[in-house]
Amino acid sequence: MLTLDKIYHASFVLKDVIRKTDIIFAPKVNPDCQVYLKTENLQVTGSFKVRGAYYMISQLSQEEKAKGVIACSAGNHAQGVALAAAKNGIKSLICLPDGAPISKVEATKSYGAEVCLVDGVYDDAYNKAMELKDEKGYTFVHPFDNEDVIAGQGTIGLELLDQLKDVDAVVVPIGGGGLISGVAFAIKQLRPDVKVYGVQANGAPSMVNSIKEDQIICLDSVETIADGIKVKEPGEHTFEYCKKYVDDIVTVSDDEISSAILHLIEHQKLISEGAGAVAVAAVMFNKVPVKGKKVICLVSGGNIDVTILSRVIKRGLLKSGRSDLITIELIDKPGQLRDVSKIIADLGGNVIAIHHERANENSDINGCFLRIQLETRNYDHIKEIRNALKEKGFKLI
Amino acid sequence: MLTLDKIYHASFVLKDVIRKTDIIFAPKVNPDCQVYLKTENLQVTGSFKVRGAYYMISQLSQEEKAKGVIACSAGNHAQGVALAAAKNGIKSLICLPDGAPISKVEATKSYGAEVCLVDGVYDDAYNKAMELKDEKGYTFVHPFDNEDVIAGQGTIGLELLDQLKDVDAVVVPIGGGGLISGVAFAIKQLRPDVKVYGVQANGAPSMVNSIKEDQIICLDSVETIADGIKVKEPGEHTFEYCKKYVDDIVTVSDDEISSAILHLIEHQKLISEGAGAVAVAAVMFNKVPVKGKKVICLVSGGNIDVTILSRVIKRGLLKSGRSDLITIELIDKPGQLRDVSKIIADLGGNVIAIHHERANENSDINGCFLRIQLETRNYDHIKEIRNALKEKGFKLI
Repeated sequence: MLTLDKIYHASFVLKDVIRKTDIIFAPKVNPDCQVYLKTENLQVTGSFKVRGAYYMISQLSQEEKAKGVIACSAGNHAQGVALAAAKNGIKSLICLPDGAPISKVEATKSYGAEVCLVDGVYDDAYNKAMELKDEKGYTFVHPFDNEDVIAGQGTIGLELLDQLKDVDAVVVPIGGGGLISGVAFAIKQLRPDVKVYGVQANGAPSMVNSIKEDQIICLDSVETIADGIKVKEPGEHTFEYCKKYVDDIVTVSDDEISSAILHLIEHQKLISEGAGAVAVAAVMFNKVPVKGKKVICLVSGGNIDVTILSRVIKRGLLKSGRSDLITIELIDKPGQLRDVSKIIADLGGNVIAIHHERANENSDINGCFLRIQLETRNYDHIKEIRNALKEKGFKLI
Repeated sequence: MLTLDKIYHASFVLKDVIRKTDIIFAPKVNPDCQVYLKTENLQVTGSFKVRGAYYMISQLSQEEKAKGVIACSAGNHAQGVALAAAKNGIKSLICLPDGAPISKVEATKSYGAEVCLVDGVYDDAYNKAMELKDEKGYTFVHPFDNEDVIAGQGTIGLELLDQLKDVDAVVVPIGGGGLISGVAFAIKQLRPDVKVYGVQANGAPSMVNSIKEDQIICLDSVETIADGIKVKEPGEHTFEYCKKYVDDIVTVSDDEISSAILHLIEHQKLISEGAGAVAVAAVMFNKVPVKGKKVICLVSGGNIDVTILSRVIKRGLLKSGRSDLITIELIDKPGQLRDVSKIIADLGGNVIAIHHERANENSDINGCFLRIQLETRNYDHIKEIRNALKEKGFKLI
């Protein structure tokens, strides 16, 4: 049974293991409210997961500890369990699907876990973990649906109330629901007047749908860039806690999540993963009723795939006029490329890629296309370059 | 005159204005020592500069305050002065060269400064600022060579000693030298046993050269991605403080700085600008003698240009095998592209760009080149895809 006592106990046990991460003011997320970030992306292992994993493992019997623990995850939970087990001085085995990025495998190993790569996808790795658990007597560390795990995550709730005494509302990401269950339980016991809102990706609304239907729903498929909350089905415990303690749950799109990631990079100098940014996205895009309030967005983790990060930034450059793609229809005669290049260079545009191709069926027999990718200063700069090209008679399409 | 009292006073004055930024353990920077980061990139305005600017402005007379302040900067100092003036309730005017990125101009305005865009480069903006200062009676806020500014930056030294009591060494970026002068002064007064090392970019070694020659040297040109420390000449005061209190100054290359920025993103979830990452670079690449020591790297700021950030990440993807560019010489007959695409898709490679061109003079008359940009999992994955293509008879070049 989850109790406030248990969360206080978890807080005591975790004291020398985890960082009490800072609350940081984020004035530009939404001009209509005062936004603070709880920076669990700066937690050891890069996410809050180590809290629940460590507390649960610390509560195992000597016999259970001697046998070790097992978990199945390609993400934050894997690293949390690995470090938690190592700090408890016990063995951990993490099953991962063999397509998992090498960086995650290496990170998990680096915290001291043994890694078992399983042919196939997540479900195959999960089945393998269950098989090994039964065979070897390992204890399975559930990523969310366990009351000790929930108590561990709930320690964040205690910290929030301590760090921002006059907080009005807390916004928390939901995947399986372990994090928000602990946080909402702690907050509602101590400060029932503080609102707790949950956020899911609109491509993985398992808890939203379950609460709407008042029964646990398993989604057929889930799709979002926020892989940390790409969960098909809530847990039994977490479903009950969310029903009881969470004021409302909203969803955000991948596009909104990307904007939030970019905002955190540009304005807060913080790397957040997709799941870590959904609470910020919800407040940025007015999905939760916090106008005029003091609100904490929980940034749950920062373990973003570098490829996704690169795409988010590229998109940000295009959206802010820092990059442009110009296509010009040229008459195919010598000197044209020189003339175009000169105009661009004179105006301070920086060419980073160029592509030149002969006519297609819609164009003049002597025509060709020139596509130029540019680094620019802003939209005005783009307009300036485009206008200069047009003035010299070039046909932009 | 700089005194420890003055730094304590600055600390008191700054208490409700700035954040006492966290010290964060960074276990993977260098396996041979214990590295901590002082995260001034998470300071308000994204850099430490607000400390010195605020303290200096707070010490002006009523008459000076009534007239307002002026500064010249396209970077962190501009934002620091703007916020510091606003918080002191006085007017600020910032001169910027008109080529400055719109994002910096907007950020400076958003903190409440008036911005004066000056035709030309930094020196032109500086001359304009001097002209306006004389004409209107504004007080000029020097970016580093002023003892109140230095005292403000020195508050970081007090915080470091308080936050990590058994620190052995502190590593600090040097541009004009204001930051390290304050930090080294504070530390050497209180704990002369703690080593203080400075770091410059090897393309802008103004303080290194000046100390070597034992006189202030003005460099002809400076070039580095760390624009925050791209300074041609140390200040008179800062030169003296560095000579007296800094144990050694080393330099790092742009390549080393990029690696440090990427390390902070991947392992610490922190965005650092080039100047902010030089201390980490120095420890990563063993430029300072800190083996077996507890060392704090001062991450001075996070205001990195998104274009540079994008390049650093792209380079990181290539270096870690997360991206590959394959060039194949094809016989120009139908179905070749289909076959290549199938091999890549079957192995889980993700095509993000493709370029197909006809033969050049070195190849077969029927030949053509196919260049494919791929997202890959790691080097093994790249090797697997390349080998599969070769096995099917494709000629990779």
